[in-house]
Amino acid sequence: MKPETAPRHLLNWNDVPTGVWDACLDRAVAFGRGGGSGAAAGTGAGPRRNAVGAGREVVLLFFNDSLRTRVSMEMAARALGAGVSTVVPGHGTWGFAWGSGAMTGGEAEHIEEAVGVLSRYADVLGVRLFASGTDLEADRTDRRLRQIAAAASVPVVNLESASYHPCQALADAAVLRSLGFGGSAGGARLGGRGHLADVGTGEGNAAGSGAGERGKLVLSWAPHPKPLPMAVPNSAVMAAARLGMEVTVARPEGFGLDSAVMDAARAAAAGSGGSVSESSDQRAAFEGADVIYAKSWGGAARYDDPATEEAARTALMDGPSSWRITRALMQSTREARFMHCLPVRRGVVVDADVLAHPSAIHLDQAEYRLHAQKAILEWIWS
Amino acid sequence: MKPETAPRHLLNWNDVPTGVWDACLDRAVAFGRGGGSGAAAGTGAGPRRNAVGAGREVVLLFFNDSLRTRVSMEMAARALGAGVSTVVPGHGTWGFAWGSGAMTGGEAEHIEEAVGVLSRYADVLGVRLFASGTDLEADRTDRRLRQIAAAASVPVVNLESASYHPCQALADAAVLRSLGFGGSAGGARLGGRGHLADVGTGEGNAAGSGAGERGKLVLSWAPHPKPLPMAVPNSAVMAAARLGMEVTVARPEGFGLDSAVMDAARAAAAGSGGSVSESSDQRAAFEGADVIYAKSWGGAARYDDPATEEAARTALMDGPSSWRITRALMQSTREARFMHCLPVRRGVVVDADVLAHPSAIHLDQAEYRLHAQKAILEWIWS
Amino acid sequence: MKPETAPRHLLNWNDVPTGVWDACLDRAVAFGRGGGSGAAAGTGAGPRRNAVGAGREVVLLFFNDSLRTRVSMEMAARALGAGVSTVVPGHGTWGFAWGSGAMTGGEAEHIEEAVGVLSRYADVLGVRLFASGTDLEADRTDRRLRQIAAAASVPVVNLESASYHPCQALADAAVLRSLGFGGSAGGARLGGRGHLADVGTGEGNAAGSGAGERGKLVLSWAPHPKPLPMAVPNSAVMAAARLGMEVTVARPEGFGLDSAVMDAARAAAAGSGGSVSESSDQRAAFEGADVIYAKSWGGAARYDDPATEEAARTALMDGPSSWRITRALMQSTREARFMHCLPVRRGVVVDADVLAHPSAIHLDQAEYRLHAQKAILEWIWS
Repeated sequence: MKPETAPRHLLNWNDVPTGVWDACLDRAVAFGRGGGSGAAAGTGAGPRRNAVGAGREVVLLFFNDSLRTRVSMEMAARALGAGVSTVVPGHGTWGFAWGSGAMTGGEAEHIEEAVGVLSRYADVLGVRLFASGTDLEADRTDRRLRQIAAAASVPVVNLESASYHPCQALADAAVLRSLGFGGSAGGARLGGRGHLADVGTGEGNAAGSGAGERGKLVLSWAPHPKPLPMAVPNSAVMAAARLGMEVTVARPEGFGLDSAVMDAARAAAAGSGGSVSESSDQRAAFEGADVIYAKSWGGAARYDDPATEEAARTALMDGPSSWRITRALMQSTREARFMHCLPVRRGVVVDADVLAHPSAIHLDQAEYRLHAQKAILEWIWS
Repeated sequence: MKPETAPRHLLNWNDVPTGVWDACLDRAVAFGRGGGSGAAAGTGAGPRRNAVGAGREVVLLFFNDSLRTRVSMEMAARALGAGVSTVVPGHGTWGFAWGSGAMTGGEAEHIEEAVGVLSRYADVLGVRLFASGTDLEADRTDRRLRQIAAAASVPVVNLESASYHPCQALADAAVLRSLGFGGSAGGARLGGRGHLADVGTGEGNAAGSGAGERGKLVLSWAPHPKPLPMAVPNSAVMAAARLGMEVTVARPEGFGLDSAVMDAARAAAAGSGGSVSESSDQRAAFEGADVIYAKSWGGAARYDDPATEEAARTALMDGPSSWRITRALMQSTREARFMHCLPVRRGVVVDADVLAHPSAIHLDQAEYRLHAQKAILEWIWS
Repeated sequence: MKPETAPRHLLNWNDVPTGVWDACLDRAVAFGRGGGSGAAAGTGAGPRRNAVGAGREVVLLFFNDSLRTRVSMEMAARALGAGVSTVVPGHGTWGFAWGSGAMTGGEAEHIEEAVGVLSRYADVLGVRLFASGTDLEADRTDRRLRQIAAAASVPVVNLESASYHPCQALADAAVLRSLGFGGSAGGARLGGRGHLADVGTGEGNAAGSGAGERGKLVLSWAPHPKPLPMAVPNSAVMAAARLGMEVTVARPEGFGLDSAVMDAARAAAAGSGGSVSESSDQRAAFEGADVIYAKSWGGAARYDDPATEEAARTALMDGPSSWRITRALMQSTREARFMHCLPVRRGVVVDADVLAHPSAIHLDQAEYRLHAQKAILEWIWS
């Protein structure tokens, strides 16, 4: 039954109060520090598991493939005592219709009915629905995800839409916070490489001036044979800006992020004591960086002029103008951590030796997806 | 190991004692009234969850796609404390052979072995196996489902076969009972629209004469580009007849239900104080209806003369002779509830504004699939 | 995080200490005897369920189809209180790259990252990855499975690789041990057919001389239209040899098992008091057999000269030289049990009447997959 107030959706962190982000970030960091390593936490009331979700049910709806998100969401649900069912249109269930006309196209069910039904079964609905890549306005506004949210009478959690990946944003921020980065973690940056397990409590672990060295994070564009969607870079720049880091978006000309996203990032940075800048000089941007967050995304022209966009993008894959992340590039940084949301194409986006280097924390990011998603589910059910 | 007595199958409600239907219907209605809304029931012994299935395992075998059935069955199992595994031939496992000859056709496994194996793992096997659409005798007798039941040494629950959909039947009956319809719910019909949540206990909530106004339900054929199977209309007419409603099957000439099903429905109505009639005049049938249950199904000729059947059916999709359910049609009723099992093609079977109208209770039907299936599992394990 | 010592993998039983096999075999037999039949064990501390896995998570990764393994592994996890997520590349997630070059082939993720991520989520990773059928060295060494194990920081359990099927081996051995076969079960062979449920404790249940009649097991090649992989016959001959049975591998010329496997089997037999021999005369081998374990596998020539191998194999499908298992063949045995791992093609590998005969214990084998896998998970988490 439709509640009197709108459900507590998490479509992106901009749409919820800042205090929610702060609280979820604290919980994600706490889950990350929970007793023991890996997923096991013993049979007692280990801090990595609780009963907040007992008697509740999660339904995950994947319109696109997933490895990390699906497994970590199923585990996050179970860690809180909830049940979970995963639905994958095209694999055991049918595709849906979205429009307002008569359903003469062959689809068996309208998304309104599907979501209405799932709202009767689930206490929360997780939805993955990637960008169309052809309809700019639909992608910028996450139109289909919002259509689902409007049809749902239970909270909807975005598991990566056209424009945002809030679970990734929280996980990334929790990893960075755990490493001492950002303006609200006591202002200290840990010296050296500091494997996450060595970090301990973070606060009070200041190696440095205590004057608030927030850390410089470079969100670096990287090459790819396809024009990938904007959700992850959007979420990454927002996460780093909220944390209060000195953020530089390094990208070739024509590959800037959406201006509304950049404005929001700058506003968040203003509030957190950080900063946001842009650069089209990758090498210069890497100098002095504490964190390199690599990702490929399509150029702005991909919607209007895909052929031109593709030519520009693929020209940056190899040769001297290649934006591929290499050890040579990493060596110009301040022993920077390397981050990537995964999946990643070795030798195309980043070299295998960068991934193998101890500074690479992409597996920690993947692990923190689990911790972040528990924090999100806890908030939804609080 | 094969038990000494046949397992407690639920292939259709005609094959089990009437007392089982009555008991399951009571439990389904009770689950529907359980504390709170939606699926959450708190962490205690909420009436919507119990431990009847603790230590037990459910295996679901889907030969055809599903959204509602699969999610609601998984949740029903978990609500009773049972584990559940879902198998979808073609998606992670192979297809099966059914015949008695040498398996030279390429299938890797015979259904006898598959079901024999699953009987060693599961305490109950849920099976969805739609009509062939080409072999009338096989579809009328649910031959393949019965072959599975014969091979199984554990109970088999039909999750929609060629001829019946017992889970849908029980859910629909529970919704109707909750709204005060039928001859065994104290005989009173609720006045007005009465959202399910407003119904309360049903009994003693009589608005009206108390003289047993059972309600008039019209099972109305509707158009569709495909000749759909008979399972849902068969189950719907049986459910309404068992409830003791005044049932009219409204369908074009050539689109009558199977005569054996009509005979069984009439017999059930005789026992419950209801009635069953047929009409080929949709508008006339709708007059005075309390419930419109819409569904498309193929004409009897589909097996012998598919081309003729298709021409007849598609001629009824549009224009003045269209059987599509519209607000205009609904307005000739007695403010009737609108029912459909879903999935449904908007603008083809029924107009979107009918689905959006407060009288539409298709989402309640979907919700009651969960309650009904818990009742069924409880019975099987009692 | 990568542990200091290598994880406790189970890629095949040759790679772990013999004591582990012995202990797991005892636990598998014990689980098989657990209270009640089928999967239900009540809500208490039934011997078929325990809390060893509470708070733990299992991830299953199926590169190939599965019915038994997937369902029984999911249930084994739940029986021990663990959660489980199943990943099937191609069905909801993407395929992986394996090589060391740049990932220009279209795959989205490298197996190194995929396994690194799953190691952060799971306490154990079950992997099914069949033979390539084209690269002999890769198949003989289980190269891809070992690549996964090397990348994993949690235990990897082989759910059937190119060369071994350790879960099947343990299940088969547990069934045989329960029937009184082998040298370490008190040395007595049960008389008559003895349904597993009649066996009771096995030990002290000697019908016979007590002089150690271990039982004669014939691993018999059987026909099939495809050159099937070696994993099951390898595991079956090893299991029977470890048990101390008198093992004969009956196969046509050109269809011998890998010489390294035969050597290992002979060594295991020497240690257990059993024996291993080979025969190309199926009828002669069947005489006096107590157990017939049928399976098809490709001839050694399949890698180098597939056309010749196929011609040789298909010539043995029908006619007087057919190696198909029939009641006539079974009648030359000592009322032998019939075993097959399943899935099996009726009328091609074995006749339906052999499967229907009371001597056929293939469904017991399937059931013992569940018991064996619980034993394996217990060991991994001990």
